Amino acid sequence: MSSTLVTGIGELVTCAGDPADPLGVIHDAALVEEGGEVAWVGPASQAPAADERVDVEGRAVLPGFVDSHSHLVFAGDRAAEFAARMAGEPYDGGGIGVSVAATRAASDDELRSLLAARLTEMRAQGTTTVEVKSGYGLTVEDEARALRIARELTDEVTFLGAHVVPSEYAGGPGSCGDRAAYVSLVTGPMLEACAPHARWVDVFCEPHSAHAFTQEEARAVLTAGRDAGLLLRVHGNQLGHGPGVQLAVELGAASVDHCTYLSDADVDALAGAADTTVATLLPGVEFSTRSPYPDAAKLLAAGVSVALATDCNPGTCYSSSMPFVIALAVREMGLTPGQAVHAATAGSAKSLRREDIGRLAVGSRADLCVLDAPSHLHLSYRAGVPIARSLRLGERGATSPDSGP
Amino acid sequence: MSSTLVTGIGELVTCAGDPADPLGVIHDAALVEEGGEVAWVGPASQAPAADERVDVEGRAVLPGFVDSHSHLVFAGDRAAEFAARMAGEPYDGGGIGVSVAATRAASDDELRSLLAARLTEMRAQGTTTVEVKSGYGLTVEDEARALRIARELTDEVTFLGAHVVPSEYAGGPGSCGDRAAYVSLVTGPMLEACAPHARWVDVFCEPHSAHAFTQEEARAVLTAGRDAGLLLRVHGNQLGHGPGVQLAVELGAASVDHCTYLSDADVDALAGAADTTVATLLPGVEFSTRSPYPDAAKLLAAGVSVALATDCNPGTCYSSSMPFVIALAVREMGLTPGQAVHAATAGSAKSLRREDIGRLAVGSRADLCVLDAPSHLHLSYRAGVPIARSLRLGERGATSPDSGP
Repeated sequence: MSSTLVTGIGELVTCAGDPADPLGVIHDAALVEEGGEVAWVGPASQAPAADERVDVEGRAVLPGFVDSHSHLVFAGDRAAEFAARMAGEPYDGGGIGVSVAATRAASDDELRSLLAARLTEMRAQGTTTVEVKSGYGLTVEDEARALRIARELTDEVTFLGAHVVPSEYAGGPGSCGDRAAYVSLVTGPMLEACAPHARWVDVFCEPHSAHAFTQEEARAVLTAGRDAGLLLRVHGNQLGHGPGVQLAVELGAASVDHCTYLSDADVDALAGAADTTVATLLPGVEFSTRSPYPDAAKLLAAGVSVALATDCNPGTCYSSSMPFVIALAVREMGLTPGQAVHAATAGSAKSLRREDIGRLAVGSRADLCVLDAPSHLHLSYRAGVPIARSLRLGERGATSPDSGP
Repeated sequence: MSSTLVTGIGELVTCAGDPADPLGVIHDAALVEEGGEVAWVGPASQAPAADERVDVEGRAVLPGFVDSHSHLVFAGDRAAEFAARMAGEPYDGGGIGVSVAATRAASDDELRSLLAARLTEMRAQGTTTVEVKSGYGLTVEDEARALRIARELTDEVTFLGAHVVPSEYAGGPGSCGDRAAYVSLVTGPMLEACAPHARWVDVFCEPHSAHAFTQEEARAVLTAGRDAGLLLRVHGNQLGHGPGVQLAVELGAASVDHCTYLSDADVDALAGAADTTVATLLPGVEFSTRSPYPDAAKLLAAGVSVALATDCNPGTCYSSSMPFVIALAVREMGLTPGQAVHAATAGSAKSLRREDIGRLAVGSRADLCVLDAPSHLHLSYRAGVPIARSLRLGERGATSPDSGP
């Protein structure tokens, strides 16, 4: 088995330190990869020999970013909706229907090609693991198709048939619609068709949107998914205070995402469930919808487990950039640059119940993020500048390594 | 003379429309370059023949960004100061001294190499014209050196000996220092040594910082610069309300930059001077110093000429990204995506008193920004994603063209 020695690491962020030093920085470091895994990390002066050698010339190296929340299987363009929202139109989740129509109309090859291009774009910005949700099909066939295609390109696939109630069930003016029939579809035939392709089930639990799901509807979706062997994620507390966080904690979901509006009771619940349920913050959404930012520093101080992700999607945040998310979390959410990096790597890995990614220690995947900068501080110091790129060492099945620096 | 036809332009933003349509968009367009200038623009169906051909495959094409405010000639690293500021330390301009010490200690070759790398980074993000200031030398020799090196790599060079009062003149605790002696140096021997290398003179007029210059000191610097044949720029109204805007308008400066704190009288003065004096907004500074954003929509409504630039510098904004600045101006300053693009191209060109850049019309420079997107809307819709790159067609002396798409 071939090994590679990475030398010239000016600053190695391992995210494998002890609780008092979660960032676990080693200066003037080296790392050895063997078989796609980290075989050794430590000071450059003590580095062992290896078959090949990559010199990163003083750059900072981090664990590759873990983007634990994205919606990348879609067709169509919603730039005009974004421009209208910036001019004052409110967001209530209704625009998702535009993407649903375009996605249903697209061929498998079109969707595969769009997804592959978006994943390539993410990897070019330092992301090495991407969770991908369905949710723009909303029929049995279209949801299963989205998950099947996503599964070809990533390990972390989430069934989100409960993204919105599609228009054909929501009913038009003068109609009460048949939301219950859609929930039955999602928890019945759709789940059955989708579960084999997915690891996770998710639901948009949001009483402030007529398009989303109530607490009891969300509970039905999550428990049915759990019974089908899926692990749980929740979209909660995005548009206002609501039951999403409490439901996620009650059901032992791995993550509750958005957390834009949190009560003190929500924070307490998340702190009490810190070993189980991660609060995944998506500041690109607050940026792109001109919403208030949650106070991440307060969450960390309360003992909550915090992750950062992009939520890359065509409606509320079409940014694929984890460095941008990190810069926003520092500027707007009160995190230090180091806390933001930790949340975007080890924190997001925890929200996916993964210990083999988001950190660089012996046995973890050799998924690196290399910065054109001497320190992780530059991810927020140099906001907007594309200084991060991924470097995946070794072969691992479907995922080919990106090119080196 | 060789000519190049650019085809496949899904959306061409010319910034050469009439006042009712300043963006001047042409869909399904083409452009012909000859001798480094635009020789023809129009619908693709009417495009003339040319010697060479570049197909941008449906992408949007804009005028290359004009970054009319940057401080790129410096050495040293101030990432730790940024992190401290994010943790609550206030900014008063004092950190500039750290860059001054490192810059004075650097060799010519080091400074040249650092500047070249920063310009390359900007071009990779769609910027084709960069104004570069001195201001980290603050001795006759070090200021002249910075301008000489900058002039090797850009046409727009600004003498900013009046960046701060250097520590050796400001005096320490218990001393009143000798600010007047420094102003005499700047307006005398330093100006004499620097004027041959520069087109512009600039001053940090800011009564809220003990390191910066008062209204009367700023007036002395600007009038001396004008007498030496330089055109005028002003740093004003950054840290609080102050005299910078009024002084800039009174003296006919081409631009007053920052404009973070504006009174109604300031807005009126800028509106009255819209043909002469541009308000250059630097939202990356507000982002990186956690300051309030000025209301750019209000300025446009009042009739003020508005430009956007990065202010790329090691202290208050180490971002070189015009796309990031555009996204911030839309999110935080109330500009539409189109208004922000116009301010970052034609607006910034006006602030440099240039009509050959910032627009794509017959006779202007063939400096393009090509987006990996179908529309200029994506610059703000896809915040943080590196979708812009520059494409400079034809040879123009010292500036070699970047590679094509």
